[in-house]
Amino acid sequence: MPSPRERIAQLPEATIHIEPFPNSRKIYVRGTIHDIRVAMREVELHDKDANGKPIRVPLYDTSGPYTDPNYNCNIYEGLPRIREPWIEARNDTEILPEFSSEFVRKKLQEPSTNGQLRFPKIRKPRRARPGKVVTQMYYARQGIITPEMEYVAIRENQKLEELKRLLGKKWTRRHPGMPFGASLPEEITPEFVRQEVARGRAIIPANINHPETEPMIIGRNFRVKVNANIGTSAVTSSIREEVEKAIWACYWGADTIMDLSTGDYIWETREWILRNSPVPVGTVPIYEALERVGGKPEELTWEIFRDVLIEQAEQGVDYMTIHAGVRLAYIPKTIERVTGIVSRGGSIIARWMLAHHKENFLYTHFEEICEILQKYDVAISLGDGLRPGSIWDANDEAQFLELKTLGELTRIAWKYHVQVMIEGPGHIPMHLIRENMTRELEECHEAPFYTLGPLVTDIAPGYDHIASAIGAALIAWYGTAMICYVTPKEHLGLPNKEDVKQGIIAYRIAAHAADLAKGYAPAQIRDNLLSKARFEFRWYDQFNLSLDPFTARAYHDETLPAEGAKLAHFCSMCGPKFCSMRISEDIIAYARKTGLSIEEARQKGMQEKSEEFRKKGSQLYLTTEPEQTPAQ
Amino acid sequence: MPSPRERIAQLPEATIHIEPFPNSRKIYVRGTIHDIRVAMREVELHDKDANGKPIRVPLYDTSGPYTDPNYNCNIYEGLPRIREPWIEARNDTEILPEFSSEFVRKKLQEPSTNGQLRFPKIRKPRRARPGKVVTQMYYARQGIITPEMEYVAIRENQKLEELKRLLGKKWTRRHPGMPFGASLPEEITPEFVRQEVARGRAIIPANINHPETEPMIIGRNFRVKVNANIGTSAVTSSIREEVEKAIWACYWGADTIMDLSTGDYIWETREWILRNSPVPVGTVPIYEALERVGGKPEELTWEIFRDVLIEQAEQGVDYMTIHAGVRLAYIPKTIERVTGIVSRGGSIIARWMLAHHKENFLYTHFEEICEILQKYDVAISLGDGLRPGSIWDANDEAQFLELKTLGELTRIAWKYHVQVMIEGPGHIPMHLIRENMTRELEECHEAPFYTLGPLVTDIAPGYDHIASAIGAALIAWYGTAMICYVTPKEHLGLPNKEDVKQGIIAYRIAAHAADLAKGYAPAQIRDNLLSKARFEFRWYDQFNLSLDPFTARAYHDETLPAEGAKLAHFCSMCGPKFCSMRISEDIIAYARKTGLSIEEARQKGMQEKSEEFRKKGSQLYLTTEPEQTPAQ
Repeated sequence: MPSPRERIAQLPEATIHIEPFPNSRKIYVRGTIHDIRVAMREVELHDKDANGKPIRVPLYDTSGPYTDPNYNCNIYEGLPRIREPWIEARNDTEILPEFSSEFVRKKLQEPSTNGQLRFPKIRKPRRARPGKVVTQMYYARQGIITPEMEYVAIRENQKLEELKRLLGKKWTRRHPGMPFGASLPEEITPEFVRQEVARGRAIIPANINHPETEPMIIGRNFRVKVNANIGTSAVTSSIREEVEKAIWACYWGADTIMDLSTGDYIWETREWILRNSPVPVGTVPIYEALERVGGKPEELTWEIFRDVLIEQAEQGVDYMTIHAGVRLAYIPKTIERVTGIVSRGGSIIARWMLAHHKENFLYTHFEEICEILQKYDVAISLGDGLRPGSIWDANDEAQFLELKTLGELTRIAWKYHVQVMIEGPGHIPMHLIRENMTRELEECHEAPFYTLGPLVTDIAPGYDHIASAIGAALIAWYGTAMICYVTPKEHLGLPNKEDVKQGIIAYRIAAHAADLAKGYAPAQIRDNLLSKARFEFRWYDQFNLSLDPFTARAYHDETLPAEGAKLAHFCSMCGPKFCSMRISEDIIAYARKTGLSIEEARQKGMQEKSEEFRKKGSQLYLTTEPEQTPAQ
Repeated sequence: MPSPRERIAQLPEATIHIEPFPNSRKIYVRGTIHDIRVAMREVELHDKDANGKPIRVPLYDTSGPYTDPNYNCNIYEGLPRIREPWIEARNDTEILPEFSSEFVRKKLQEPSTNGQLRFPKIRKPRRARPGKVVTQMYYARQGIITPEMEYVAIRENQKLEELKRLLGKKWTRRHPGMPFGASLPEEITPEFVRQEVARGRAIIPANINHPETEPMIIGRNFRVKVNANIGTSAVTSSIREEVEKAIWACYWGADTIMDLSTGDYIWETREWILRNSPVPVGTVPIYEALERVGGKPEELTWEIFRDVLIEQAEQGVDYMTIHAGVRLAYIPKTIERVTGIVSRGGSIIARWMLAHHKENFLYTHFEEICEILQKYDVAISLGDGLRPGSIWDANDEAQFLELKTLGELTRIAWKYHVQVMIEGPGHIPMHLIRENMTRELEECHEAPFYTLGPLVTDIAPGYDHIASAIGAALIAWYGTAMICYVTPKEHLGLPNKEDVKQGIIAYRIAAHAADLAKGYAPAQIRDNLLSKARFEFRWYDQFNLSLDPFTARAYHDETLPAEGAKLAHFCSMCGPKFCSMRISEDIIAYARKTGLSIEEARQKGMQEKSEEFRKKGSQLYLTTEPEQTPAQ
């Protein structure tokens, strides 16, 4: 275990260098209701619009200010507190004179190790004024469209109207296919956001003590979101690494991160992450509670847990996993499973219950939990402590009993205007995935579903990002609002930075595939533009519109490294003679050349021009290289 | 382009070294109807059965004799011709005095470059005796169970009965979930194989000139199969590389390979691959035909194509992609697509048709094609020349018109007892995948479906093995019999050996996930055994039962390299204190200790034992290490 001194040595430099995405710039779209600036990334294509101007494609951007060249990054300062004026303008919160958590008060009395291990500027916490409720759900129910809601609406739309004008209507969506009668509107309005939040069908995790967050929404009528888990461990990672990993995760497309740190400096680590995270941060408070009792679940108490809850809420955690649905009576139902209880939180609670033979204190104190979280707008992520850990255990009695209880708890949280999402599995064979979604919607009253994968087979350790991306894509299409990534190291070891990237890319693929299937128009436009670039041999545009332009380009250059090859109208797969896309180009060119409309061409046939076409074709081929390479 | 001299320098060594899978041995299961030996791989676990003997798990094995330590590999000799006695015993074929293809006869008159570029032992071709039909479909329709059929039945079962005896019935399958009323029997009998082949619902690609093949079956009531594309190109790969790639592909789990070689030495390359391939080999003959006319599609003729067909059939190609469904009238329907025609074969034919304004000669000569292929038992893979090349183009008129024509051609092929499968797309958003399967079954009379992916988004170049594995898993669950892999280099460059491996693993995950969903019992048993090993901290068993034991172990060792860690009852994710699986173990141990049956335990509750449990628990924790690391 590294000493505090070693940890200090590992603390991050003031700035974090992030390579900007190629041909991309940061743009900010202004609100019309509120004075807000919504960040997006805009990719400039080589392709031109009707007026000869380069087409600019706005993309959803989770990377935060780090990719803005005008932003002067200093991780000792933390990110700009963009939500602070919005929160203050609501005039329903107050700054407390000191932290409510005993643990934090004690911490602050201890000298900070050289003033460096601890984040330098610890601010006083903010809390709802007595009698006030400050959750986005509460505001939504009052009919108020907050700046957070308008931000989210603009962000989800990705300047769609502009693109539609540019590209024509046919590009936006086709056969949207979301099941369960849910409806993804083509354009998302602030009022629609408000309605969904009021109804509990979507949440905006936005703790008033995390004003650095760029607001985002989790709900099945919105873009599918991806969560990335990070966190220090005493043995293998430093605070510096975790802050970098957090920023790295956002860069590649994580919509939220969960800090699952354990060990000695949980509180310190979380402060560094929160102050530098542009996305909402989630935690599992029972982990920290367990630290406080020396890792002995039997010694946990409600009072200790309560203090952790308040501590994390005042620090700015946006959502917390609470395993309140693991009830004593359900434990024996896990005994015949192949893999018992695999949720760490679930097993800690199970152990506590068995040791005391008492009902889960998270269940019995759930109303108090809601009362606390309501004061900071912390969303609850109802943990699935009895989720299956293997294909065989999927959809069993224990799992669905807990789900029913989560539905009961959802109603309670909503009574307190606390935003709720429901955690889901895990390991599920493909044909049993849909039942998870159906039941979740029924039992949990359409609260957003947030699943870990699910993995669709157990035999792929080392490749579980793939095995789980299959399940994640499927369940997201069925309606899951956020999918929690799995890295290639799942079941084997701790993810490093590269594993984090691989996990996020696999999950962005899954989320995007679900968005397409659900008829999310900005997703379809991006696919169309990339495919059009591919077909027109605009290699750079193809790379730059992809999820990972650097890798796409590197793979291309492995076979054809010359700069000229990126302007060539063929690629290494087929070579110049065989290229099917090129032949297609010729077919279209031929049709255009006939001067006929497509319909006329169909009717008249093309016989009379065949000789001309043949000549043109022969010419074309004479100018090409003799090499060919295989592809189907 | 390398000179013939350079090519010779690159020719393979006589032996190919393949690292055996850990704790695995080759076994051969004897037939009961025929004198056959069916190869499998058996993994020995550390886990013991009731008699204290190590559990041995038989796995489906595509690697051929290369992983048999008793096999004396010599790629200049080629593989043992295991099917030769079976073919001869049928007494319906004859060895021809010379090759029927003019091209080959000419080739053989040319001196072989140093006798080395050419495979040393070219054998005379075999053909059906006049008036005889030698296809597996014909035999099946006559009520004959061939050795190929029995081989396949034994292979598909993977000694299931033995495992069931060993493990108990509950392990085999649960909620099998195959749609469309198809039925995957729990045990596959030779008679069932015969029926499926007779019905045209499955094919056994087994050219009488490729007696080296270990028979395998492609059909939706069997294990899902994976194809890998390989092939030389004049620029970037040598014959040696391609032979190695073929063997490598089989090692990682390719059930068939397609040789898509282009350039000068297509015929020579294919001979090397065929003689050394333990799996069926497919080709796209139009590629070679195009080589013969200098790459100019307009100059193709039926006669040239016909010679290629016969040449490849007499060499031993097991199935051939024939783009006979691309009809002239369908071409204009591709003009408004985002990506036109992306199938290389389809675009070659389209170009030919437009240049001549004539109907596709593959369509007009289809009966002659069947007459030829019938004589060698070459299966037809009806190509989807108009498959969509982008999400936007999916399921359009052009695609489904062609599919209808493929159904018409299927009936014709069946008239000639020629085995048929139907190729499918490509790029399809998730919600439109199912329609592809439904229509294929309807229009093509349940002939096996063989799809390329499909990719479920276009924005993932560099990761298209993942983007397409999602679609492949889905469509395989719906009933697709074989999925053609996509490597990370798709759309960007030519796959190297590592890309081939990545593509196959992603597709084995997809295929296995579909097998689980379809209720294929041997798949479920493997998952259960691996999960059980995971739960019981048998790390080596977990690695060895996985798709890639080497990578699984390497990832584990990155965090916990010590040998002892592989015996430890915890892992790096949670560390010893937090381990949920371990806590679960304790829960089960507790339940067992109470001496109650599980039902009694449920009824009586566990109150009276809670103090004892607590003591035991505390003890356990006292013996563990203080480090913890994060995971959810």
